[in-house]
Amino acid sequence: MCDELGLMRRALELAALGPAVDPNPRVGAVISDPAGRVVGEGFHRGAGHPHAELEALAVAGRRARGGTAVVTLEPCDHTGRTSPCSLALLDAGVARVVYAQNDPNPKATGGAVRLRAGGVAVVGGVLTDRARDLNADWTFAMTHGRPRVVWKFAATLDGRSAAADGTSRWITGPAARADVHRLRAQAGAILVGTGTVLADDPALTVRRPDGAPEQRQPLRVVMGRRVPPATARVLDGAATTLHVRERDPAVVLDILAEHEIRRVWLEGGPTVAAAFLNAGLVDEVIAYLAPTLLGSGPPAVGDLGIATLRQAVRLQPLEITTLGPDIRLRASIHHHRPHPRDVTCSPE
Amino acid sequence: MCDELGLMRRALELAALGPAVDPNPRVGAVISDPAGRVVGEGFHRGAGHPHAELEALAVAGRRARGGTAVVTLEPCDHTGRTSPCSLALLDAGVARVVYAQNDPNPKATGGAVRLRAGGVAVVGGVLTDRARDLNADWTFAMTHGRPRVVWKFAATLDGRSAAADGTSRWITGPAARADVHRLRAQAGAILVGTGTVLADDPALTVRRPDGAPEQRQPLRVVMGRRVPPATARVLDGAATTLHVRERDPAVVLDILAEHEIRRVWLEGGPTVAAAFLNAGLVDEVIAYLAPTLLGSGPPAVGDLGIATLRQAVRLQPLEITTLGPDIRLRASIHHHRPHPRDVTCSPE
Ligand SMILES: NC(=O)c1ccc[n+]([C@@H]2O[C@H](COP(=O)([O-])OP(=O)(O)OC[C@H]3O[C@@H](n4cnc5c(N)ncnc54)[C@H](OP(=O)(O)O)[C@@H]3O)[C@@H](O)[C@H]2O)c1
Ligand SMILES: NC(=O)c1ccc[n+]([C@@H]2O[C@H](COP(=O)([O-])OP(=O)(O)OC[C@H]3O[C@@H](n4cnc5c(N)ncnc54)[C@H](OP(=O)(O)O)[C@@H]3O)[C@@H](O)[C@H]2O)c1
Repeated sequence: MCDELGLMRRALELAALGPAVDPNPRVGAVISDPAGRVVGEGFHRGAGHPHAELEALAVAGRRARGGTAVVTLEPCDHTGRTSPCSLALLDAGVARVVYAQNDPNPKATGGAVRLRAGGVAVVGGVLTDRARDLNADWTFAMTHGRPRVVWKFAATLDGRSAAADGTSRWITGPAARADVHRLRAQAGAILVGTGTVLADDPALTVRRPDGAPEQRQPLRVVMGRRVPPATARVLDGAATTLHVRERDPAVVLDILAEHEIRRVWLEGGPTVAAAFLNAGLVDEVIAYLAPTLLGSGPPAVGDLGIATLRQAVRLQPLEITTLGPDIRLRASIHHHRPHPRDVTCSPE
Repeated sequence: MCDELGLMRRALELAALGPAVDPNPRVGAVISDPAGRVVGEGFHRGAGHPHAELEALAVAGRRARGGTAVVTLEPCDHTGRTSPCSLALLDAGVARVVYAQNDPNPKATGGAVRLRAGGVAVVGGVLTDRARDLNADWTFAMTHGRPRVVWKFAATLDGRSAAADGTSRWITGPAARADVHRLRAQAGAILVGTGTVLADDPALTVRRPDGAPEQRQPLRVVMGRRVPPATARVLDGAATTLHVRERDPAVVLDILAEHEIRRVWLEGGPTVAAAFLNAGLVDEVIAYLAPTLLGSGPPAVGDLGIATLRQAVRLQPLEITTLGPDIRLRASIHHHRPHPRDVTCSPE
């Protein structure tokens, strides 16, 4: 067991080599032979590539027989782009499977059950939290059946997202703007309303501090009924753009879930942000506050239908950072929905 | 000289024993005899009490003759509630005077000149910054001819100071509210507009966390033309209240300067805050931001006549603190007025 903990740490290291932003989770696997020698290692290189267990089994070959497979995620039982890992492990003749996180994907779960039915000793719940942290957005998306929504806004200290004449560039300084690009890069999609596209004509791409575009670009998503002009920068081909002619946040998230988006970076504007907040569909808020005052201008968030102070939307602060003169506050919103938890499991 | 630096440190220690909030500066003095032995110490106990030099000279008596007086502030040359310290030092026959801060009070300055004319060796500029820090508000008030204005506001993350129905208790949590009372206590006066009095009926007193009032209460000041009802809590006698039936911030500050107020704690509301900001009469901003969203309700600050982003009022952040779930940002505003500076002076 002591050894298996070490192998799990190694599997987690391997998992971290996978792509951080991907429809699929990052998974690592280590196979040891009956004598406890490592005979195979593997990790998942992202959607379209083999699962980690299959990579490790391919390396181990016949040496896996009677051995142990240590995997950061419960082996899948689902025929997707690859055949179920549960079957592959049974075929390879492993005697024991140790894994970290239960598979929260309703389509893929069942691997542990099938392995046990096939006579394999299965132990789950080893370093679960570390495995889950590695795939926080994916785990959220699988558990809730929708992407995690991170709402970003930039405002003055008095809550203005633009001046009276609509100018909003730049409310915050270069350090905050670079940070936005860094965080945009962690999302599967960047979402704005038609109002923002029509008012600001943003590019919604991820750029490096020198202005050069990053290689991987999130999906650009515009929601709302109006059609952006053909000259809009979101239609410039620098990244894929999806115009969802729809105002219901839940419907938009359904569509993004179908696109295998695990994290949505909601970048406003105030009307669309208010719609997501009212629907209980904002999970995290990232506020960039500039130490400036405007006294007038569009607010950071539109009407939330709140009449009295007691009804205010309450956030749980996670982190406060300074970025040059600006402040970044990260906070979560909990909507009191139950989060299914991985059971910390005991040996069979 | 080395010794005199030690005596100045002691004088600063003595000065700090004086009252932190007072019309007068905190001053300490140490007298040494010609052999360098300390023969007298004193500090200023606040308006109406003798100056530090006179206290120290009274202890030293004839032993001051031919000795050195080390004082944190240039000895005054002004007949106020006490006679000029310059004359007292000449009368006592001290041979040398060492001081830290030049007297910025135009009515009191001239002590160094008179002492030199009387044949005393005078050295200024020793540990000046420490002396000035001890009396930052007083120094500001003397230099600018008006009290320093600290504007405090509490708002949600989206810049609302109250909900749509006007409810504003409590936007921030108990830790932030206790902090407000701690900082109110550092002011000579707490100022609000008639609108705040009529809407919120605040007590504007300084209370301890257990609700008990502090012994020293700042002057409560209400500005605006309307007359608060006789039942208003600001008229309850718990502290002195001044109703200035006036809307011009500069005129109000003139009146407060006459009342020897060195620091004004401007507690709103949005209209009066905007008037002070527009007049360039806010020196420091203390923003308490709650991690909540309202989406509607009165803003933290009223219209500033700003049309476009470039004209935003820019603050220089000084300090960010968390108070329970809330954030406190302290920032300064510089209005590009020259601040006369103490000259770091050399021996005569
Ligand atoms: N500082 C920042 O962080 C930031 C970020 C973004 C925007 N902004 C500022 O925000 C301003 C634009 O504000 P905005 O409110 O018009 O932008 P928006 O929220 O991006 O777009 C609003 C529009 O989206 C459509 N829409 C989509 N879903 C909707 C729903 N559930 N309910 C209502 N409408 C929905 C509507 O147009 P259709 O008729 O087309 O459906 C609506 O007019 C600009 O001045 C921009 O500078 C600031
Ligand atoms: N969260 C916070 O930190 C905080 C603090 C304070 C207030 N508030 C909220 O602010 C709201 C009250 O807003 P408010 O703007 O009415 O309060 P206010 O700024 O305290 O009072 C405004 C009134 O003061 C008078 N006044 C004085 N100088 C003026 C000037 N230069 N220009 C114009 N008017 C001047 C005017 O009334 P006259 O006709 O009498 O001259 C004006 O109507 C309340 O809802 C309160 O809860 C929030």
